[in-house]
Amino acid sequence: MLAERKILALNLVSSPGSGKTSLLERTLKALGERVNMVLIAGDVQTENDAQRLIKAGGRIVRPIVTGGACHLDARMITKALEDIDLSAAELLFIENVGNLVCPSSYDLGEDMKVVLISTTEGDDKPLKYPSMFRRSSAFVINKIDLLGQSDFELARVKDNARQINGTLTTFELSCRTGEGLNGWYQWLEDQVALKKGRPPKQP
Amino acid sequence: MLAERKILALNLVSSPGSGKTSLLERTLKALGERVNMVLIAGDVQTENDAQRLIKAGGRIVRPIVTGGACHLDARMITKALEDIDLSAAELLFIENVGNLVCPSSYDLGEDMKVVLISTTEGDDKPLKYPSMFRRSSAFVINKIDLLGQSDFELARVKDNARQINGTLTTFELSCRTGEGLNGWYQWLEDQVALKKGRPPKQP
Repeated sequence: MLAERKILALNLVSSPGSGKTSLLERTLKALGERVNMVLIAGDVQTENDAQRLIKAGGRIVRPIVTGGACHLDARMITKALEDIDLSAAELLFIENVGNLVCPSSYDLGEDMKVVLISTTEGDDKPLKYPSMFRRSSAFVINKIDLLGQSDFELARVKDNARQINGTLTTFELSCRTGEGLNGWYQWLEDQVALKKGRPPKQP
Repeated sequence: MLAERKILALNLVSSPGSGKTSLLERTLKALGERVNMVLIAGDVQTENDAQRLIKAGGRIVRPIVTGGACHLDARMITKALEDIDLSAAELLFIENVGNLVCPSSYDLGEDMKVVLISTTEGDDKPLKYPSMFRRSSAFVINKIDLLGQSDFELARVKDNARQINGTLTTFELSCRTGEGLNGWYQWLEDQVALKKGRPPKQP
């Protein structure tokens, strides 16, 4: 259904607290007027993330509360999209449950998984959660404003990620300071264009 | 079997990168001579954490690589303990897979679950992962050296945790700077004493 409508669907996956919602808040503020977005915010409990996305300007936001389940599945996404008018939609963001293990095994009908980690989590994470990195297409390293406050090294995390998956498109950014976000926005706009069969601005 | 031998068993649970291994490294260095510890380090992939614990002075350390499974279970623990001489053991630490969801559902034969979060993960986590906080007895807030670098508030996270579980024993500490660790060490020694039927130093 998403493919027929040429809606780019991205499945955001990470540990709890890596910054999935913060990245979407930033993205809504920067691209909300130019790109027609639909957002699904999954959580084990609470609709807090969905509320944050609405406050950040999200016009079509649907919470999914799994009530214990450790991941979203395609049936939940189908149900969440049921009552939405998708005729103008260009980009669907699915914010998965915070969990680096289980969501790696579930195809939500997405074009790509985007895996986030934050610099405070340690640069060993790609090696310890290889399935998630193997099945992702993009890798966002968030909280680069906190580099130097731990022994996390950018070169090492990228090398570890490359060992697992040599084709990851990587972004280094801070949702707090805004550093590095322009590259992410540009990539998103390019992917939306490509999905529609249009040439990207920056090939 | 652990109960018969009066071995205090603690199941450490958290997101990836909250600092379970760092806390155990510190604990080994501080109490390794006074308390006879056995450590099990669970991970989806790699034995890196077990290697870190051996380097930190752990004499009996067993890795469990789940190879994809998102939690440890009691059978894995039984198997890991099979070839260990437990006659002198006083304290068993089980470092679970980094995951705030699934490990909450599995009893590993522990006396208590100890849930960690780090200040960089956001103070909303107890509300979003209530099952883990409900089933834990102690709550460690790590990385307090990074307070002020995000909008995380100690008062708020403790209030959120209290809403889910009013009986949590809470520690605020930094495995990086060492701040707050003495209270954790004292609590551990007291729990080991209580398990053996001896009075704690600080009742």
